[in-house]
Amino acid sequence: MSSYDNVLESLKKLSIEPNTVSHDAVADNKDWSAIMQPSGQVTKTLIFKPKTAKSAAPTPVVVIALEATETNAAALSRHLGLKDCRFANEDLLQSTFATTKDAVSPFVLSNVADLSLVHLVVDASLLSLNGADRLAFRAGANNQSVLISVDELKNYVASLNKDITEVDFAALASAPAAAPAKDAAAKAAAKAKKDAKREAALNEESHQMGIEYKKDLDFPRWYQQVLTKSEMLEYYDVSGCYILRPLAYNIWKEITNFFDGAITEMGVDDTYFPMFVSNRVLEREKDHIEGFAPEVAWVTKAGNSDLEEPIAIRPTSETVMYPYFAKWIRSHRDLPLRINQWCSVVRWEFKNPQPFLRTREFLWQEGHTAHLTLEGASEEVYQILDLYEQVYNDLLALPVVKGVKSEKERFAGGYYTTTVEGYIPATGRAIQGGTSHCLGQNFSKMFDITVEDPNWEGPDSKKLHVWQNSWGLSTRTIGVLVMTHSDDFGLVLPPRVALTQVIIIPCGLTVKTTKEDANKLYDACEDLAKRLKKAGVKVKTDMRDIYTPGFKFNHWELRGTPLRIEFGFKDMQKNQVTAVRRDTRLRDTIPLDQLETGVKQTLETMQNDMYQKAKANMEANIARIDTWDQFVPALNDKKLILMPWCDRTECEDDVKDRSARSSNDGEEEDERAPSMGAKTLCKPLVQPTDKPIIPGETKCVACGQDAKHYMLFGRSY
Amino acid sequence: MSSYDNVLESLKKLSIEPNTVSHDAVADNKDWSAIMQPSGQVTKTLIFKPKTAKSAAPTPVVVIALEATETNAAALSRHLGLKDCRFANEDLLQSTFATTKDAVSPFVLSNVADLSLVHLVVDASLLSLNGADRLAFRAGANNQSVLISVDELKNYVASLNKDITEVDFAALASAPAAAPAKDAAAKAAAKAKKDAKREAALNEESHQMGIEYKKDLDFPRWYQQVLTKSEMLEYYDVSGCYILRPLAYNIWKEITNFFDGAITEMGVDDTYFPMFVSNRVLEREKDHIEGFAPEVAWVTKAGNSDLEEPIAIRPTSETVMYPYFAKWIRSHRDLPLRINQWCSVVRWEFKNPQPFLRTREFLWQEGHTAHLTLEGASEEVYQILDLYEQVYNDLLALPVVKGVKSEKERFAGGYYTTTVEGYIPATGRAIQGGTSHCLGQNFSKMFDITVEDPNWEGPDSKKLHVWQNSWGLSTRTIGVLVMTHSDDFGLVLPPRVALTQVIIIPCGLTVKTTKEDANKLYDACEDLAKRLKKAGVKVKTDMRDIYTPGFKFNHWELRGTPLRIEFGFKDMQKNQVTAVRRDTRLRDTIPLDQLETGVKQTLETMQNDMYQKAKANMEANIARIDTWDQFVPALNDKKLILMPWCDRTECEDDVKDRSARSSNDGEEEDERAPSMGAKTLCKPLVQPTDKPIIPGETKCVACGQDAKHYMLFGRSY
Repeated sequence: MSSYDNVLESLKKLSIEPNTVSHDAVADNKDWSAIMQPSGQVTKTLIFKPKTAKSAAPTPVVVIALEATETNAAALSRHLGLKDCRFANEDLLQSTFATTKDAVSPFVLSNVADLSLVHLVVDASLLSLNGADRLAFRAGANNQSVLISVDELKNYVASLNKDITEVDFAALASAPAAAPAKDAAAKAAAKAKKDAKREAALNEESHQMGIEYKKDLDFPRWYQQVLTKSEMLEYYDVSGCYILRPLAYNIWKEITNFFDGAITEMGVDDTYFPMFVSNRVLEREKDHIEGFAPEVAWVTKAGNSDLEEPIAIRPTSETVMYPYFAKWIRSHRDLPLRINQWCSVVRWEFKNPQPFLRTREFLWQEGHTAHLTLEGASEEVYQILDLYEQVYNDLLALPVVKGVKSEKERFAGGYYTTTVEGYIPATGRAIQGGTSHCLGQNFSKMFDITVEDPNWEGPDSKKLHVWQNSWGLSTRTIGVLVMTHSDDFGLVLPPRVALTQVIIIPCGLTVKTTKEDANKLYDACEDLAKRLKKAGVKVKTDMRDIYTPGFKFNHWELRGTPLRIEFGFKDMQKNQVTAVRRDTRLRDTIPLDQLETGVKQTLETMQNDMYQKAKANMEANIARIDTWDQFVPALNDKKLILMPWCDRTECEDDVKDRSARSSNDGEEEDERAPSMGAKTLCKPLVQPTDKPIIPGETKCVACGQDAKHYMLFGRSY
Repeated sequence: MSSYDNVLESLKKLSIEPNTVSHDAVADNKDWSAIMQPSGQVTKTLIFKPKTAKSAAPTPVVVIALEATETNAAALSRHLGLKDCRFANEDLLQSTFATTKDAVSPFVLSNVADLSLVHLVVDASLLSLNGADRLAFRAGANNQSVLISVDELKNYVASLNKDITEVDFAALASAPAAAPAKDAAAKAAAKAKKDAKREAALNEESHQMGIEYKKDLDFPRWYQQVLTKSEMLEYYDVSGCYILRPLAYNIWKEITNFFDGAITEMGVDDTYFPMFVSNRVLEREKDHIEGFAPEVAWVTKAGNSDLEEPIAIRPTSETVMYPYFAKWIRSHRDLPLRINQWCSVVRWEFKNPQPFLRTREFLWQEGHTAHLTLEGASEEVYQILDLYEQVYNDLLALPVVKGVKSEKERFAGGYYTTTVEGYIPATGRAIQGGTSHCLGQNFSKMFDITVEDPNWEGPDSKKLHVWQNSWGLSTRTIGVLVMTHSDDFGLVLPPRVALTQVIIIPCGLTVKTTKEDANKLYDACEDLAKRLKKAGVKVKTDMRDIYTPGFKFNHWELRGTPLRIEFGFKDMQKNQVTAVRRDTRLRDTIPLDQLETGVKQTLETMQNDMYQKAKANMEANIARIDTWDQFVPALNDKKLILMPWCDRTECEDDVKDRSARSSNDGEEEDERAPSMGAKTLCKPLVQPTDKPIIPGETKCVACGQDAKHYMLFGRSY
């Protein structure tokens, strides 16, 4: 959404329906006064930054004035008791107001996390206009303006819960040191001095708090800061291991609740197998263990004693479990046998670790099942794949592409592998989101898991090796979620997996507020929380009295809290709360008598909006190509590629080589612009229907041989 | 409950209210006929065992006859086509009928797991009596009889869903080879032959299935068989590690759901810390680590590479977490900080492992919290202790004693330790069921976890070390549950933690049943299951057609399934189901139109009965003693001991030495009669009020010094 659309939407929330006008219309010889019938004025909005101590947070001054008013910065500075007001630079505009120089309007105030640090100045000559007079505001970096009435502007400003300073610029200009102005300046200076020490400390804290890197500019550092500053994750003194703090662990808990409920319904039972594996068992299936052996961690000592033989920590549990499958399955009546466990596994990777995506210990579930027939096994493979898709779509608000892995990419020792593939827009890389494998009879032959064929009608009996599946989903999910949804202000959490869905912040308290009034406000906030909690909403209040509302806004925004409810005296009078969505940062009001339904509806809408947005983004970044010369450019444009393919491993290897950007020095070199070659991601279950593959006619885009189906390619984590 | 009480209760379930009569009354010159006005007869019940193949299950014959009838075993054998009927021995009476020779009555049929293997013969002359005539039955190994009418006996037999063979013993005696008898014998013989092969196989399976050891006679082997044959647990090829199968894991899941919900409500958040700990961190708190060091497992290799320095697997997480507490807690406003994790920990014990009780890896939750004040910390310590008590009482139907550990027994590095102590009746040993520790400021001083004292009014600021708690509950709970509730027939599970609460078994199908009727019965069973599932009951049906109902009864009984619903054609006609409780093995009927409420009520009653029974048993086994000479005898009588104590470690050591039975060769020597000395278990929170400790007057029972309080002592796991 453009910032122009944002403006229209936020005004609409205040029941302000602005007219809009194209500047071209003005250029076409229609002047402003004609457009603004019966009467009105063009305006300007200016943002200044007074000089402050380097370590302190900036305290910008926003001036809303008539275009015609002469706004002298120096006079204004003196008047406000501030030092050296200068035009704010792009950095400040971006970081504090989420805007650019050519899109400044009063409405960027909605983007400000902490309005307590902002001085809001309104031109007295503007306020003296009639309430119905029209004002034209530039509303975005295009040639559009919006027209609203003076009263509507006043309503908008009131909705911010922010005191304004009315300034008579003409008077300022003519009498720079006039008495009233001097008084105001002196007052402001005194107040500033009084609060200086406290503010300095808080500013310091506030500064440390924010994300210092832009997602677009330094994605790896941004990712790291979002994780740590949101208090999702803590780095740990054993490399490749991380602490999952409550915010992160809760996401896993929600996934667990959903998925475990669904598989229980399917008839899968939970178990727990030991984390230790003997070498003998680990090595039973050679193909399989080859894939894991270099990463296996070995326990060789207990206390001061050496163990008789080293014992491995499970990297996955196929070879741990299947000897027992052989024991437990004695008849076809014991099938299907379906078990699952929630546990951690260890893969001691030596590549650079990355929180959630590549860690030496991670949490997952692993399901292991045995079936009488391939059909039975296959049916389950896709049921589970659907559940994984639901975890992504419905809980994490993330799109995935369901598909089947190529022979080269399938699970070591398995028969075929299905996958949900995610997409990280910032890096243009795909990520394997969860896999559901059909193992065929490979393991059952190795571990001798057999039953007598119940359908055998010949003499004696016939041994039948069972058909097996294994499927797993890990905490990697959380990494995909953070990388996709979060922004320069920090974490953005879909409501369904948020530990705290709603934060209530009392607003409008000043030094002048009586203790009685303050308590009234606090009590009212607690009442709101009680109502929401009763309605099943995960809600908290932030009553810490040493922090300003602005500080708290930042605090909870950084932590991805889906909805912020601001509640001040004006809200109280109007029987409403002000609610700000984390994803769009748009504010809205909810009438008090519709609090529960309003909040729940907003959370649901937000959940859905986040999914739709991510989905549209993924879809827009899957390039359909017809010729090879489109391949690398699309890849470098951070796209995944869907194209007719011959389904040959030789071609797959070739594509990887040909698409590697330059020297093949690994995927770590530059997170934003990886140079590694593209891999096959999956054969999507839903194949394009507009240009179906015509056998013998459609050619593989990479090699020109006959295409078998569409394949999704991409750089990948 | 005596078997006599059992009889009364099972008759009451059939709405049969028997009169009871003491044999003393008969001896006192009142003869039976006088007692049984208007008319009636004394009866006898005989149990014979025909000869069968050694490997086959016995097929006993139960004869209900008038006392006066001459019952010739040889003639009966010929009549039934069975070989050599002889009186059943005590073993068979106990294992199949749960009775003894002098307590045999028709009502022991209720105790039989598999009635399909039993022949039920009723004296024709008894059946020819008037329906209202009274019959006297011996009902237990005491001098009591019960009186019921002939009709009531018929009702009872009908409730068993078991066909009876009516035998005219007089005719048998006079015409041993009479035609009708011969026919019946020939028929029976033919049927027996036909089913021989199939039965032999099933009998073999059935034989393997049951528990071969008695709980009273060989507790360790009994425990092992209950765990493995019930399919709760599987032994594993790494010593000290076990596989938790669904039946066991589900108990842990129920505990998790309950406890996690409760602590979330308290404001505790879930986290996950890595399982690996660096040596440096592990050794930070010396006192603490001393307790764990000999059992720490060390990872020294990954793949083929040696690690730079060995890395430990957590034995507990105090030293893992607290460096981060120091980082996260920056102000008193961050307090209380409360986190919990569900994970596995490793303690590589070298003592004999025992499933659930002493394992090298086990599952637990560990809560770690920090508070501003000791009061705040202490309040939580006891809140958690209450929750642990609720886990035992409400979920596991087990009693515990809440109390405080002695100085000697408290957590290494802690301030004080509270505990819930359980009791294993079969061994007379106590077991520490869960501990909630106040760590005081020991760890916060070691890890420098401080805040500025918010209540300090002096100059500058004052650093305050936080007060910490840690608390843990493990899968050991499952061991206590199995050891306490289970019986010679296998596992007994309280309904609230059972994976399957109700098993529905179709009954009464014979070779004569038409396919249509069979399908009708199967469908009806599925309908029952659907209704119960909808009502929130965890229900399964056992429709396997190769197994007899009796086989299935054993199967599900062994697995502790709380309620068995038998549903046959007679039930269908009567619009009822027959329900058999696992704990009491009593049968009852539930009208079909009250199925849901009836089943749920029965499960609730069972849950409560199991708790009350275990509680009464524990209470009966806590001996109050006044003199030391009562101590060892009480201990050897499998009791715990509650007595006034001086609270001195020296005395505690002395008690242990003096109460060790003989050579101190460890607790492993004999599970049933451990010889190790008694430990202090806890100072119960609820102290006896009948003889309160009078300071300076009441003396320590062990040493004669002044007693401080009552202390619970016992042999302990």
